[in-house]
Amino acid sequence: MARSRLTPERESELYTAVLDLLREVGYDALTMDAVAARTHSSKATLYRQWGSKPELVARALRANKPASLSEIDTGSLRGDIEEMLAHTDDCQMDKDAALMRGLAHAVHTNPELHRALRELLIEPEMNGLDEVLQRAVRRGEVAADNPALKLVPHMLIGAFIARPLIEDQPVDRAFLSAYFDAVVLPSLGV
Amino acid sequence: MARSRLTPERESELYTAVLDLLREVGYDALTMDAVAARTHSSKATLYRQWGSKPELVARALRANKPASLSEIDTGSLRGDIEEMLAHTDDCQMDKDAALMRGLAHAVHTNPELHRALRELLIEPEMNGLDEVLQRAVRRGEVAADNPALKLVPHMLIGAFIARPLIEDQPVDRAFLSAYFDAVVLPSLGV
Repeated sequence: MARSRLTPERESELYTAVLDLLREVGYDALTMDAVAARTHSSKATLYRQWGSKPELVARALRANKPASLSEIDTGSLRGDIEEMLAHTDDCQMDKDAALMRGLAHAVHTNPELHRALRELLIEPEMNGLDEVLQRAVRRGEVAADNPALKLVPHMLIGAFIARPLIEDQPVDRAFLSAYFDAVVLPSLGV
Repeated sequence: MARSRLTPERESELYTAVLDLLREVGYDALTMDAVAARTHSSKATLYRQWGSKPELVARALRANKPASLSEIDTGSLRGDIEEMLAHTDDCQMDKDAALMRGLAHAVHTNPELHRALRELLIEPEMNGLDEVLQRAVRRGEVAADNPALKLVPHMLIGAFIARPLIEDQPVDRAFLSAYFDAVVLPSLGV
């Protein structure tokens, strides 16, 4: 396998550099040349390992997610959410919000980035969130036909985009926790 | 007043051209030269009338909003929302979603655009929405201390950004109506 040529440590170093560059200059200005220079690797290596810039960016984002949502199972929806928030620090959330804003635009004009993000980041995340929600359904906490079950990602993306845009405030754990209590849980009937 | 030199028709023509360009090329690539060429006006005129690109874009967006939310008053929150949706066609919503995606990124890197958008578009819109919500509070439909009252803009921005991003579907009246029923109204306890 081509991918096995890099050690996991080296791969992780590369992904960190890609995300730093993404926050600094944005997606459009992030070139493979800049990644090669920042990580002291050759462009040939980057293309051999990842094939394209959209795939490299999507994999870097995927690798950046600390714990899988689906590993969380406390026995209640509210407990699962608290556990999820406890595993993310405020600085990380602010960085995630910056990435999300930059990418919402880039995705709009780059179908290949959209596809890569969808397969590598959006769908696995949504599946993890969906598992947490489906367990709540099986426990009888949420009605199986509640239409808000499919709209939780929309609510969360709104929280991440609108908090800095409208309120000029960073997304932090206190805000997200209040948002779950005021919006997400009531819409689910919890 | 400098602004009185243009007729309302000419001003409206200019704003339409600015929004067309914004959707075609995005905020960063939208130059005053391109606006001048598209509208057969001089750059000097544009700068004299609007002062700067962020202000011109913010005024064009503001002029684009068809009816003020605060003019709607049907006697119930659900009625006000239906009336609001009835006044917007599907194509317009899809165009609005495209503008919102493009601007979420530009706002992040342009403080002057953020300020202009906040004063000319975001705050007037939020005040209009807030009036609709405050009337619902005065009628007793929504509790005055419901924390979701301040989070309705977040929920709506999430709907506009996430629908195309996650579901690859345009934002239309049927989706927004279902979103109000499943998310916004339940969080408000309606």
